[in-house]
Amino acid sequence: MITRAELQLLRSLRDKRHREELGLYAVEGEKVVSELLAAGHPFESIYATPAWPGKATHPVTEEDMARASHFPTPSCVLAVGRLRRGELAPGELGHGLTLALDGVQDPGNVGTLIRIADWFGLARVVLSPGCADLHSQKVIQASMGSFARVRAVVAPLGAALAGAGVPVIGCALEGRDVRSLPALPDAVVVIGSEGRGISDEVRGLLSYAVTIPRLGAAESLNAAVAAAVVCDNLRRALG
Amino acid sequence: MITRAELQLLRSLRDKRHREELGLYAVEGEKVVSELLAAGHPFESIYATPAWPGKATHPVTEEDMARASHFPTPSCVLAVGRLRRGELAPGELGHGLTLALDGVQDPGNVGTLIRIADWFGLARVVLSPGCADLHSQKVIQASMGSFARVRAVVAPLGAALAGAGVPVIGCALEGRDVRSLPALPDAVVVIGSEGRGISDEVRGLLSYAVTIPRLGAAESLNAAVAAAVVCDNLRRALG
Repeated sequence: MITRAELQLLRSLRDKRHREELGLYAVEGEKVVSELLAAGHPFESIYATPAWPGKATHPVTEEDMARASHFPTPSCVLAVGRLRRGELAPGELGHGLTLALDGVQDPGNVGTLIRIADWFGLARVVLSPGCADLHSQKVIQASMGSFARVRAVVAPLGAALAGAGVPVIGCALEGRDVRSLPALPDAVVVIGSEGRGISDEVRGLLSYAVTIPRLGAAESLNAAVAAAVVCDNLRRALG
Repeated sequence: MITRAELQLLRSLRDKRHREELGLYAVEGEKVVSELLAAGHPFESIYATPAWPGKATHPVTEEDMARASHFPTPSCVLAVGRLRRGELAPGELGHGLTLALDGVQDPGNVGTLIRIADWFGLARVVLSPGCADLHSQKVIQASMGSFARVRAVVAPLGAALAGAGVPVIGCALEGRDVRSLPALPDAVVVIGSEGRGISDEVRGLLSYAVTIPRLGAAESLNAAVAAAVVCDNLRRALG
């Protein structure tokens, strides 16, 4: 049974403001919760109906789940976790490859970018405060479990990049050919927002921009698609 | 003014079955219709309210647009075009680079893949009949105008690939390193469905599979992301 207070808390977690206040987030759905548990992700509590094949800290009826759920069609499980409010350690960006997201607003793109960072074995993802919220259902779901594995930190990019001490490479429509990238064991790759690209503040901090050669007439590539091609080229250059 | 019959026709075009019967499709929204018109795409008719800055063959009131629209929040323009029912010419796959989509069901992915084919200057995209419908709003919208520029044909892949006469390369989790691709001016790249990968029938027709080296722990990459990395490697090999 869910108490009235619990129900109110679970429902409130769909809003970023409440997540921040409470230091908690919620994620729903058998597939996504299973992926995260399989990756060893810790949850505070797992509310689940009898249809959930795993363990539940809070067994609930379907009626209660329907009242707690953020979805029109509720799933059998809703997991609550503690927000990760990690900060960048001093000098952290100096080690390994970082994907920096500068105002990427589509949560599906943010999740896919975290998945890409996981695939290519990057050290971390840094999200500017203007990005889609790291702890939203859509971001976590689109990451396909990579949310549990990738170190992701929200930080103002200007300050972080100014002291990075490593090459800061922007993905842009006008830049050096991405295939000419040198071997860079330590670097930051910046992905700009879908509509406006890289912000002026961050643009001023780039070591240089890279471009994926275009042979056709498409105006641009999707942010996640471009990031993957740049990561593949970086990894290839490292041999 | 829209007649009752016109209204019925426009509304019916949200269903694939009706699109096939009538040989027409509809696409809505100022951004997407503008992109297609800018790319020289021909429409049969353009229904638009006074808010549409372009030309309208059928000026309508906002009330009529609200009744015709497929959206809860209608836009100022709804364009109707004739279905492209092109067939592959005999031997066509023997020339240039082809992206073949084998049951890609997410319309956003299909549209993004058409955009990727456009960016990398591929000769065409072939969609298996199990893919998301080429003429659906979401596919056209996600292509960001590339729908107007890329030759896209729906065809059973088995028959098409069996007689391709060029290397047929599958994107898979177990295959040769994509960075070892030779220079292939003529080839087909097959992208499988999001959930099930490449179908058994098509798998039997592959020359070989390629894989994007994974350094981390993500289970897979999104179909469009993987396609872009393979296209970039193909283009790089061609020099």
